[in-house]
Amino acid sequence: MGESIYGLKRSHMCSELGLSNVGEKVTVMGWAHKRRDLGGVIFVDLRDRSGILQIVFNSAISEEVFKKAESIRSEYVLAAIGEVVKRSPETVNPKIPTGEIEIMVSELRVLSKSETPPIYIEEDSDVNESVRLKHRYIDLRRPDMQRNFILRHKVAKIARDYYDENGFLEVETPILTKSTPEGARDYLVPSRVHPGKFFALPQSPQLFKQLLMVSGFDRYFQIAKCFRDEDLRADRQPEFTQIDIEMSFVNVDDVLTVNEGFIKRVFKEAMDIDIETPIKRIPYQEAMDRYGSDKPDIRFGFELKDVSDIVADCGFKVFADAVKNGGSVRAINAKGCGAKFSRREIDSLVEFVKIYKAKGMAWIAVEENELKSAITKFLSEDEIKRILERVEAEPGDLICFSADKNDIVYDSLGQLRLELARRLDILDKNEYKFVWVTEFPLYEYDEEEKRYVAKHHPFTSPMDEDIDFLETDPSKVRAKAYDIVLNGVEIGGGSIRIHSQELQSKMFELLGFTEEEAWARFGFLLEAFKYGTPPHGGMAYGLDRLIMIMAGRNSIRDVIAFPKVQNASCQMTNAPDVVEIKQLKELHIKSEG
Amino acid sequence: MGESIYGLKRSHMCSELGLSNVGEKVTVMGWAHKRRDLGGVIFVDLRDRSGILQIVFNSAISEEVFKKAESIRSEYVLAAIGEVVKRSPETVNPKIPTGEIEIMVSELRVLSKSETPPIYIEEDSDVNESVRLKHRYIDLRRPDMQRNFILRHKVAKIARDYYDENGFLEVETPILTKSTPEGARDYLVPSRVHPGKFFALPQSPQLFKQLLMVSGFDRYFQIAKCFRDEDLRADRQPEFTQIDIEMSFVNVDDVLTVNEGFIKRVFKEAMDIDIETPIKRIPYQEAMDRYGSDKPDIRFGFELKDVSDIVADCGFKVFADAVKNGGSVRAINAKGCGAKFSRREIDSLVEFVKIYKAKGMAWIAVEENELKSAITKFLSEDEIKRILERVEAEPGDLICFSADKNDIVYDSLGQLRLELARRLDILDKNEYKFVWVTEFPLYEYDEEEKRYVAKHHPFTSPMDEDIDFLETDPSKVRAKAYDIVLNGVEIGGGSIRIHSQELQSKMFELLGFTEEEAWARFGFLLEAFKYGTPPHGGMAYGLDRLIMIMAGRNSIRDVIAFPKVQNASCQMTNAPDVVEIKQLKELHIKSEG
Repeated sequence: MGESIYGLKRSHMCSELGLSNVGEKVTVMGWAHKRRDLGGVIFVDLRDRSGILQIVFNSAISEEVFKKAESIRSEYVLAAIGEVVKRSPETVNPKIPTGEIEIMVSELRVLSKSETPPIYIEEDSDVNESVRLKHRYIDLRRPDMQRNFILRHKVAKIARDYYDENGFLEVETPILTKSTPEGARDYLVPSRVHPGKFFALPQSPQLFKQLLMVSGFDRYFQIAKCFRDEDLRADRQPEFTQIDIEMSFVNVDDVLTVNEGFIKRVFKEAMDIDIETPIKRIPYQEAMDRYGSDKPDIRFGFELKDVSDIVADCGFKVFADAVKNGGSVRAINAKGCGAKFSRREIDSLVEFVKIYKAKGMAWIAVEENELKSAITKFLSEDEIKRILERVEAEPGDLICFSADKNDIVYDSLGQLRLELARRLDILDKNEYKFVWVTEFPLYEYDEEEKRYVAKHHPFTSPMDEDIDFLETDPSKVRAKAYDIVLNGVEIGGGSIRIHSQELQSKMFELLGFTEEEAWARFGFLLEAFKYGTPPHGGMAYGLDRLIMIMAGRNSIRDVIAFPKVQNASCQMTNAPDVVEIKQLKELHIKSEG
Repeated sequence: MGESIYGLKRSHMCSELGLSNVGEKVTVMGWAHKRRDLGGVIFVDLRDRSGILQIVFNSAISEEVFKKAESIRSEYVLAAIGEVVKRSPETVNPKIPTGEIEIMVSELRVLSKSETPPIYIEEDSDVNESVRLKHRYIDLRRPDMQRNFILRHKVAKIARDYYDENGFLEVETPILTKSTPEGARDYLVPSRVHPGKFFALPQSPQLFKQLLMVSGFDRYFQIAKCFRDEDLRADRQPEFTQIDIEMSFVNVDDVLTVNEGFIKRVFKEAMDIDIETPIKRIPYQEAMDRYGSDKPDIRFGFELKDVSDIVADCGFKVFADAVKNGGSVRAINAKGCGAKFSRREIDSLVEFVKIYKAKGMAWIAVEENELKSAITKFLSEDEIKRILERVEAEPGDLICFSADKNDIVYDSLGQLRLELARRLDILDKNEYKFVWVTEFPLYEYDEEEKRYVAKHHPFTSPMDEDIDFLETDPSKVRAKAYDIVLNGVEIGGGSIRIHSQELQSKMFELLGFTEEEAWARFGFLLEAFKYGTPPHGGMAYGLDRLIMIMAGRNSIRDVIAFPKVQNASCQMTNAPDVVEIKQLKELHIKSEG
């Protein structure tokens, strides 16, 4: 039944020991990572959270302890008492911090045995993920996984320290709350006390944090669990974690500044990386025009150039028509790619942009004395000259065009830009480039529902200078909204909120809610706004995604202790699972599954 | 629509200003707490989270600003620019920290107006709680409520700092998990992807934190949301918050010691109160024998004394029978109460103990020269003498007896003890007396289900010296379990866990699970225990209850920002609420409500 540890007390973690402890009698505890036998001597790598320490059993010292040691298998849990001994120079292991010493064991207890584990406990194991997740408790023993969670702990701690020092109060908001069907699909919780009624798990603490501002808390902070019942992708989970903040009496600049302080601090303290502040701010429209994306990766160039004015009346119908139909023609100068890429590689780029709904991709390869291209014959010499000037073409360059509706032009060239960087392998994993994208459109038009929907959420404040467009042309209204983007990934975002009941009601009206609908759903917020609401705004970071990037992983499952898989189930606990009929009866529901 | 604050920047919080700022031009923002008019001068108490500051509008200085100020009503949100001025000695307000100065306002903006609020923003308002909860955002403006949440923030921060410094890692465990019907009723969440299956919200992260120990995380910490679908009492909520910890390679003493460090730290830093450590430790049986309770309030005496041996064969049948039937006779010496209490008051004590199933309460009032009692005539002189000696009776004392099954004797005298303290008003609210209660029974017998159930939970380790009783007499087995009790309230508890699969399986068997049932429910834990499990243990604090006591409140609703009421609903959002049929269809359930 395993032995009690009464009477034994761990004196050190494995990695705490070094040359300065030589001669001390110590008690260490951990897992048998590896065992090697060498004629009368057994070496065991003992592993705990801190690292690995070699412990040695010598039959010449104690036959009894040696005998016990012979039973040790991988992942046995051991307590060992012994003397710290300096290793001879030829046996020093420079790969581990404790490599200059070892423990000569005089007493051993096997605290727990182990069957052969289904996965190796080693760095970056490439075991099938489903096996890893089923035996997550073993998977989490791997050093790289332990590092991910130590990093996650650190980042959360730094966030709490930083916002605390800046006057933010941690306030917990409810998990059992009300369904607000605008947005993603809610997880519902049937009520036992109120038949036919349901709680919803929050998609974010948005309304509660705004109400805390109405309450005069001034600055709020929470690392909050949020829930969305959507189909999963690699970077989505049914439950995810946000660093969530809100501030009163602030404008956009105030929110950005306090958060730049956080980003600087967290990268410095957790990773010893200096982030330059203030962080570059790019209005949404500029981000689209230059990078074809509202989450631009600014580690490299290849910016988009608008050539619509040059080709509006040109002889190449595809170009001229795109402009005529209200779209545009834009180009990327893929520097040096004309010389680097084969015809076949260029053709594969043409295929690539089609994924993003582009009908094709015109291109010009610039050579020392000529242009290779299928389209130059339709363009005048002047048009060609102006295009080459606009994109600053030089011999060896490859000019790639997209001509279509703006959405498609942006998306296809934005994606092409990233694809080029990948093919050229010019992205530095150790470079961290932040950018704020600001002045997002307040609305986007939903083709399906034939109405405007809020791009951010319906509590976002329009920009003061665009207020008049609310009535005349909603598509022109920009919002006091911002995203923080790191290496092309959106890691957070927020906005200044509406704090006037009239404006909030108008916003709901423009989104197509009747007054009754608006009050049924958000009545408590509209009611709250009657009693003195400070101007306020805030933001939220996706903590899982931030840690994923900081840890250099490709899946957020690697930074969540017990994640769900694609079909929203847990491989380890087998949740969700069937429940007893009695439980459903008490909840006044019937399963039709 | 309210004015933008662009161009205005708050320079100080209200309470940051004092005499050292006299002459400075400042910008302050907050709520109009009170307004007084005094012939050409308007005084407004401006309130923000930090406190109150007087701002002054003088028609002689600016007629225009004065006019604006005339529109100010209670709870309007204002931004005011002005000069810090020293008040004349006769107008100094010593009650507020900023009472020596005021702001002579030169520019005013009304950021937001307010209707007359439904509750006054004042200390300890006695407004009907349901109105307070409906308009929680206003209720939370009251200074005492703000203090509660600032305290809560501080305590959470200190906990995170303390456990971090002691090597604990914050790890988030899932909210969408598996139903484990042993324990309280689960909240269920229907799965959309898996028809007929349900997630459960966790009643605690118990299994996950144990698995983290199996994973080698060594020390785990989380401030975790937990859920129980039980009927509510004043100190219960459907969702509540735990400070949750777990440690590997430890025994009971290790866990208690590290947590005493936390308690000392949190009371010192949050309230400047010194708690003496080590905290007194009382085994469960001793707590019952001395205080009739496993959560003794040790701020006062009135301890129970067992007199069974004296009265076992006495002439008072009630006493003798109680002993004969395996129960006991115990007494409390209510010091001085014989002289203090009238006959009527004593009778009301007799009524009081009946609430706790006592059939009555014998008593002896000790006077200078005689004993007043209805039972002394049935006792011999020697028996009386020995009883009085045992309870150390002196003239003026009141000896109260309970004779019954032990459960009833403990409970009735334990409650009587507290009632006496309340009636005598001897409990000092500002005294904080902690005690550990240890060595709880591992099992208790469930009369209804006719089987043993785990007193703590089925993962609790038995004490080594009692292991043999598992087979022979489970009722005698003590557990490595402990509670921390503050002033008679259990604020936390935990145990050393079982870490052997064999023992854990045996435990489930003794609790009446078949092997199949045990594996169906806890298979992933049993499976994990196969692969090298360190000895481990931990505890959890009820954060809401801890803050309630520290803040000196009587309801945990006062320390939860958006609490539920008795019937598990939220007065503000109206959750739980009806949802759209479409939502239920997607979840494959039908409401029968």
